[in-house]
Amino acid sequence: MSEAEDLVKVAQAAREAAAELAPLPRAPKDAALRRIADALVAATDEIIEANAEDVARAEESGTSAAMIDRLRLDAGRIEAIAAAVRQIADLPDPVGEVVRGTTLPNGLELRQVRVPLGVIGIIYEGRPNVTVDAAALCLKSGNAVLLRGSSSAYASNTALVRIMQRALAGSEVPERAVQLVPGQTRESARWLMRAREYVDVLIPRGGASLINSVVEESTVPVIETGVGNCHVYVDADADLDMALRILINAKTQRPSVCNAAETLLVHAAVAPEFLPRALAALKDAGVTVHGDERVRAYSADVVPATEDDFYAEYLSLDIAAAVVDSLDDAIAHIRKYGSRHTDAIVTRSLEAARRFAALVDSAAIAVNASTRFTDGGEFGFGAEIGISTQKLHARGPMGLPELTSTKWIYTGEGQVRG
Amino acid sequence: MSEAEDLVKVAQAAREAAAELAPLPRAPKDAALRRIADALVAATDEIIEANAEDVARAEESGTSAAMIDRLRLDAGRIEAIAAAVRQIADLPDPVGEVVRGTTLPNGLELRQVRVPLGVIGIIYEGRPNVTVDAAALCLKSGNAVLLRGSSSAYASNTALVRIMQRALAGSEVPERAVQLVPGQTRESARWLMRAREYVDVLIPRGGASLINSVVEESTVPVIETGVGNCHVYVDADADLDMALRILINAKTQRPSVCNAAETLLVHAAVAPEFLPRALAALKDAGVTVHGDERVRAYSADVVPATEDDFYAEYLSLDIAAAVVDSLDDAIAHIRKYGSRHTDAIVTRSLEAARRFAALVDSAAIAVNASTRFTDGGEFGFGAEIGISTQKLHARGPMGLPELTSTKWIYTGEGQVRG
Repeated sequence: MSEAEDLVKVAQAAREAAAELAPLPRAPKDAALRRIADALVAATDEIIEANAEDVARAEESGTSAAMIDRLRLDAGRIEAIAAAVRQIADLPDPVGEVVRGTTLPNGLELRQVRVPLGVIGIIYEGRPNVTVDAAALCLKSGNAVLLRGSSSAYASNTALVRIMQRALAGSEVPERAVQLVPGQTRESARWLMRAREYVDVLIPRGGASLINSVVEESTVPVIETGVGNCHVYVDADADLDMALRILINAKTQRPSVCNAAETLLVHAAVAPEFLPRALAALKDAGVTVHGDERVRAYSADVVPATEDDFYAEYLSLDIAAAVVDSLDDAIAHIRKYGSRHTDAIVTRSLEAARRFAALVDSAAIAVNASTRFTDGGEFGFGAEIGISTQKLHARGPMGLPELTSTKWIYTGEGQVRG
Repeated sequence: MSEAEDLVKVAQAAREAAAELAPLPRAPKDAALRRIADALVAATDEIIEANAEDVARAEESGTSAAMIDRLRLDAGRIEAIAAAVRQIADLPDPVGEVVRGTTLPNGLELRQVRVPLGVIGIIYEGRPNVTVDAAALCLKSGNAVLLRGSSSAYASNTALVRIMQRALAGSEVPERAVQLVPGQTRESARWLMRAREYVDVLIPRGGASLINSVVEESTVPVIETGVGNCHVYVDADADLDMALRILINAKTQRPSVCNAAETLLVHAAVAPEFLPRALAALKDAGVTVHGDERVRAYSADVVPATEDDFYAEYLSLDIAAAVVDSLDDAIAHIRKYGSRHTDAIVTRSLEAARRFAALVDSAAIAVNASTRFTDGGEFGFGAEIGISTQKLHARGPMGLPELTSTKWIYTGEGQVRG
């Protein structure tokens, strides 16, 4: 059988599984998730064996140590993956929630009820824990999932999906509700992006180039996640100690994530007082500052910033920096260069905070707080499938409700329109 | 200047207007809408003159009388268009609504606030009233709008937009918040579908082929509207008088709209009693029935149905009809042939109603009611931009809130992540 035929078969099975899964109430879904968690722990050796193949292949091909670390699974990590599944089982089920409802003047009882989206395709990169994490979130929200991971994690992902399917086989959730896309090739990803008949939504999880290619090529609706060029703007009215604390936290607490800060903007009125302290603190923290001319005036360590630096999502100990003459210049800079993820203002001025929050067009605005709080866990969602930087359907951290749609149901006694 | 340069200029102006419009509170937006309503009525002669050009061109090219009627504007219709704008001004403003909010354990005050989408592109067909209606809905929800209507209504649309811009010139809403896409050609539509940088969402309003082409070609996120192959399923436990009333209303009260019924499914247990009455009533109402073999057994007037008939959105006095052996067969039929708009069940059985509502995967389910109630007006939304048959972002009738996104704002006193 050709790869294309395999793909259709897998997608059809997903569609059928989605139809069976959608009406299931919470209890059997939670039971299935707990079976998956138990099965993963029980199969630790099987997983590690498969993972060793991927790791060996990565080592042979000269993959970086950091990438290999992200790929590697051990008993502790498998236990953590299983614990995350159990945590998802403990969360409330979004399906069935009545979002709105009323009785219409003609007596029709109208309600809008959360329902699963159907079949969710996830296209992701190296880390095999995403395989389980995404599957658990989709199952909990009543969706079938088609997983298309990286070929570098193929053996690990195959083992993880096989074990999850084995666990589902003894549950009320259909086994084929979790499937790996055959091939895990460029072609299989492309097929998924065009499979409007079978896939209700595609969620790319990974770097900017992956996300952009999915957005460009997909005819299936996409939820864009996670590119973050987050700004920290230090206003003329800022508490400068607070500003420094927020800047260092936002940049250095975990530089590799999308809600880390990538650009510092400082109001000219406080630049002479703030920048020397900030540049010294950033240097101490090992951060390279890419500054405009006005920033470079304060330290010889500052590297000249190009236009590209202000667009960059470094995900490393680098930060772009510029001095701005006004709040509105800061807002204009962010609107031009930002990625509409999270932008922070540090200010004591209520007026400045209001204006910044109103005019910066991003998924999240942090007022006197680190950008690092834009996170499903921090927001209290319990779990997160990603952070949407698009405006349709979901914006910001996406929890379980964001993996659902709604359906209107109206019930009457023979009402007709006059 | 080339058409492409014109398009960029118009789109840039829309982006700027959107930024100015987004933070405006309700009062200036409502004032601008009322100015538009007044201006349209005051410019009745100017509109009728422009419209006469379009009508003359349509008559010359042999357009059908029905299409010309949809195109034609007179004083009464212009008054109705203005009244609809005033009605939109009277509706609550969705922008600024706090959708969710809490204080996090660390003291951060978190709220999710409705914000405009930004720039909305509308691609639509003949009727010039859509030009004003869509513009008013977009303005009220704080969005700039790029209108790409039909070339057949170009003179009318140009006049309507000119008058609306004139009215906006004296208001706080920027004039360029409402613009016609230059050219109104196939190329201008295509450009709009690829203008990710300028357009936040595209809403096609019109027939199935328009909608499909936008969905296929657009890289801008699309909200799909309105193709309706709605079913009426008469269950074994139906009140047959009620079923007849609902069937005739759903099919004949306004056959040209997307929530009219296009397929009748009858449970075999009640077919011998129901179908003779139903077929006679449909015949009396001038409806041609395209039936399967089992339906044809009840009347020589029934035309043989092809596979295509069961997929068809007739929008005319035609209906496809089939006998099914079970509730589950009805559900399977609807899942296969339906367009996921609105499907009705007539039954006295609570179990059947629950199962139908759970397993039919459509935007709306009508239980013992006509499919014609799936409508923003009937649902109490006050106005409607269309009926979404997709699952992302909005499903079913879309009112003003569906023309918004949200933004998270969190406010603290220097919180950082540990």
